[in-house]
Amino acid sequence: MARAVGGEGSLSNDGLSEDRAALALEDLAAGQVYRSASAVIDGAAITAFAAAWDPQPFHLDSAAASASIFGGLAASGWHTACHSMRLFVDGPLRIAGGLVGAGVEQLRWPVPTRPGDILHVETEVLSVRPSASKPDRGLVRIRNVTLNQRGEVAQEMIATLVVPRRDAGGQPAGP
Amino acid sequence: MARAVGGEGSLSNDGLSEDRAALALEDLAAGQVYRSASAVIDGAAITAFAAAWDPQPFHLDSAAASASIFGGLAASGWHTACHSMRLFVDGPLRIAGGLVGAGVEQLRWPVPTRPGDILHVETEVLSVRPSASKPDRGLVRIRNVTLNQRGEVAQEMIATLVVPRRDAGGQPAGP
Repeated sequence: MARAVGGEGSLSNDGLSEDRAALALEDLAAGQVYRSASAVIDGAAITAFAAAWDPQPFHLDSAAASASIFGGLAASGWHTACHSMRLFVDGPLRIAGGLVGAGVEQLRWPVPTRPGDILHVETEVLSVRPSASKPDRGLVRIRNVTLNQRGEVAQEMIATLVVPRRDAGGQPAGP
Repeated sequence: MARAVGGEGSLSNDGLSEDRAALALEDLAAGQVYRSASAVIDGAAITAFAAAWDPQPFHLDSAAASASIFGGLAASGWHTACHSMRLFVDGPLRIAGGLVGAGVEQLRWPVPTRPGDILHVETEVLSVRPSASKPDRGLVRIRNVTLNQRGEVAQEMIATLVVPRRDAGGQPAGP
């Protein structure tokens, strides 16, 4: 990753979002890197999330998880994904009109998230281009890597965001 | 999609899972189609999920959402993804050892999920192959399409599952 932009935010200080100027397409360039704050994922949260969205034994019960392919309690990948989104939304990359995804082209979970893991997200801007059909916006391709406290990759996502152009008034007019 | 396998399950009847035989790699073939039960997504659930995982105005507030790119309250894509996973887990495709993802190669949300939408998931088996390195398992590529009550695609995901081979005892030995 090339150059660092922005600093650490805080999950509990939502006021931070109002303090930072929202960015338009013209402000973004390949190689920019943004780093989120951190979040601790405890075992009770892992099982509560799994009970709601991904009720499988290796996400719900330590004994069953030990006998599974995961070798111990592991968060649902979707739990890691949700934490990653929250850290990203609360993080330093503020886009005018919000973080709107045009799609995800890769999402993988190389190592499971375990009870007590501490996650943060590093975002690299891969490319920036104006929309061919809609002059008020552009498309920004990013790599979001979610790292745990051991420096292991808990999630890697490559996605494209819809970002308004500044001369379009800061917000695209429609979907 | 080719031939239908399995029927509708029920979100509220977890006992169903024990009634159906879990499948191994040898049971799966390209062209098989599985259909989940349905789930209703109400507006309060949309805003509660967003408050936890994706707190952006267009997922939290109807007025702000009307002025946004979404033109009205829209569920976070991650909310649609979580519902899709739950419907998939509760659905008719039962894999020995559980639904373990090796990775997602595409995830997109062509139309937003709105308050009152009713979602279900249709799973098509795209390909089945033994692992080149691990004789106890194989890789099954699937397309999961989440449809709303209007027949619109709320989510399309292409993913690969790790599936045990029957002669390996029903469960891979390690990650």
